[in-house]
Amino acid sequence: MHVHSMHSEIDITTKTHSASEIMKTYLDCIPCFIKQSLEAARMATGDEEIQAEVLREVMKHLQAISFTNSPPELSREVHEIIRKITDSKDPYKKVKDQSNEMAKNEYPYLKKLVKDADDSLLMAIKLSIVGNVIDFGTSNRFNVEDMIDVAVKKEFVDDDYPRFKEVLKQSKSILYLADNTGEIFFDKLLLEEISDGEKKITYVVKANPIINDATIDDAKFAGIDKHAKVIAGDAGQSKSTPGMVLSYASKGFLELLKTSDMIISKGQGNYEALSDIDREVFFLLMVKCPLVANDIGTEMARLVLKVKE
Amino acid sequence: MHVHSMHSEIDITTKTHSASEIMKTYLDCIPCFIKQSLEAARMATGDEEIQAEVLREVMKHLQAISFTNSPPELSREVHEIIRKITDSKDPYKKVKDQSNEMAKNEYPYLKKLVKDADDSLLMAIKLSIVGNVIDFGTSNRFNVEDMIDVAVKKEFVDDDYPRFKEVLKQSKSILYLADNTGEIFFDKLLLEEISDGEKKITYVVKANPIINDATIDDAKFAGIDKHAKVIAGDAGQSKSTPGMVLSYASKGFLELLKTSDMIISKGQGNYEALSDIDREVFFLLMVKCPLVANDIGTEMARLVLKVKE
Repeated sequence: MHVHSMHSEIDITTKTHSASEIMKTYLDCIPCFIKQSLEAARMATGDEEIQAEVLREVMKHLQAISFTNSPPELSREVHEIIRKITDSKDPYKKVKDQSNEMAKNEYPYLKKLVKDADDSLLMAIKLSIVGNVIDFGTSNRFNVEDMIDVAVKKEFVDDDYPRFKEVLKQSKSILYLADNTGEIFFDKLLLEEISDGEKKITYVVKANPIINDATIDDAKFAGIDKHAKVIAGDAGQSKSTPGMVLSYASKGFLELLKTSDMIISKGQGNYEALSDIDREVFFLLMVKCPLVANDIGTEMARLVLKVKE
Repeated sequence: MHVHSMHSEIDITTKTHSASEIMKTYLDCIPCFIKQSLEAARMATGDEEIQAEVLREVMKHLQAISFTNSPPELSREVHEIIRKITDSKDPYKKVKDQSNEMAKNEYPYLKKLVKDADDSLLMAIKLSIVGNVIDFGTSNRFNVEDMIDVAVKKEFVDDDYPRFKEVLKQSKSILYLADNTGEIFFDKLLLEEISDGEKKITYVVKANPIINDATIDDAKFAGIDKHAKVIAGDAGQSKSTPGMVLSYASKGFLELLKTSDMIISKGQGNYEALSDIDREVFFLLMVKCPLVANDIGTEMARLVLKVKE
C-alpha cells in the first residue's frame, strides 16, 4: 500500500521533558490515575453511584496536587480516597489472590525453564522481570504468556548482566525490593538462584494493601520466607505507596538500603521512587508506561535489567 | 506455551449496562475526556502551566456533570473549557489542515480503488467508513493504511447493504451527516457514487470548530459543494457538538431530518447523538470506543454499516 499511516504523520505538538524533571508526576499521569480509580472502584463495589463518587473525589483531589511529588506518592493518596469511599480496606484482594494462585500453579513449569536453561541465573532474572507483567497499577496490560515466550526465545539486551553477576558474587547482603502479588512466585525463582546459604537476603514488601502490591502475607504464601528475611519496608505507616518512597520508609529499611552490598529493585513503582538515590541499584522491570520508557531510554513492553549508580 | 494470559483469566468485576441506558455518558467517558483535554491543550499551547490549568478546570467541571447527557453534549462543554483557558478558538486547526491535505493527496488513489472495484458503490461505502479512522475525539487510534487494506481485501459484514441500495434507489432526497476533516474526502467518493444529478443531497457539517469535526470551509476545500448542498446543522449556535445533538440543531436541519428520504450518518458522535431517533438511519462508522462497540453489538476497530429504525 502506498498510503501511509495518517495519524503517525500528523504532528501533535507534545512537550518533551528534560531528564532532571523525569519521574516526578506528569500531566499524563492524571487521566491514568482516574482510569485506575474507576477500575479499583468497580473491584470494590457494583454500585455505580459510589463509583461516580470515587471519580468525583479523586478529580477533586487531583485539582490541588503538586506535580513535584512522584507518581507513587500521589497514588498513595488516590487509593486512600478509593478505599475510604468504597469502604473497602483492599479493593484488589480478589485479583491479588487470583494472581497468587495462578502464579503458584505456573511455578513448577517456570522452575523447569530455569533448570533447563544454559544460564540458569539469567533465565531466573528474565522470568522475574516477566512476573512484573502482573500489574494493576498501570494502564497498559500485557500478556504473561507472550512475555514468557520473549524471555525464553529472544535475545535479552543485558549489557548490565555481567555487572549483576560480578556484584552478586561479591555480595554478602542483598536487599530485594518486591513489587506485586503473583510476581512474587517469579521472584522466588531468582531468590533460589542467588541464595547460597551464606548470603543474607532481605525481601521487602509493603506494610499495607496498595493496588496489587505484595504484603507480608503474600510473601509467606509464596514461601519467600524460606529463602529470605521478609520485612515491610514501610513498617509503622498506616498507608503504603506502590514503590518504596524513602520519606515513608522505616529506619530499618533505610539502614539496609545504605549498608546492603547489593540492591535488586523490582517494578516501575520502585524505579519511580528510587531512580535518583545515590548508590548502585539493579532495577528489574517491565516497561508499562511511556514516561518510564522515556526515562530509561527504552521502549514500551521491554524487559529491563538496568544498573543505576 | 501452556501458560495462558493471566490477566484475561482474572475476573475484574465490571458493571454491564442495559441497552436502554446505552449512549448516555458513562463513567468510562471521564478518564477519556481528561486524556483528550490534555491532548487538545497541548495542541493549543506548549505552556505546561496552562495545560495543567485545563486539566484542573475540566476535572472541576466533570465533578458536577449529569450522566444522563450524551457524550457529545459533554464534549461540547469540555472543549469550551479548553478553548477558553488556552485562549484558542480552534486547537485542532493544525491537525485538521494536515488531515485535509493528506486525504486530498490520497484521493486520486482512493478514486481508482472505487473505479476498479466490482461493486463501486460498496467500495465507496467501505472507504467512506475507513475515512472515519481520522479522529482526534477518541482514545483509540487506528492506522488508515491498515484500514484501507481491510476495506479492499477483506469480506465486509454488510447485511444492511441490500437495504442501503434499495433505499438509495428510491430516494430523491438524501441527508448526509459528516464527521471529520480529512474524512470528508472519503465522503466525496461516496457522494460521487450516489449523486445522479437528480437526487437532492444535503451534506451536514458543524457551524463552529469542535475537535477535528468538519466545518463549511472544510467541505468547500474538499469540493463537496459540487455534489451536495452544504449546511451547518447547528447554524445559529455559538458552540458545536461532535455529533449532531438534536437539542442544538437548526430548524432547517430538523425539517430535513424529518422529510429526507434517506439519512446517512457518519461517525460515532452522530451515532451517539442519533441512535435513538424514530426513523431509519444508515450509520457508517468505525468503532473506536468499547461502549459504542457494546451498543452496536460488534467489536472494536470494525467498519460498520448499520441501519437503525
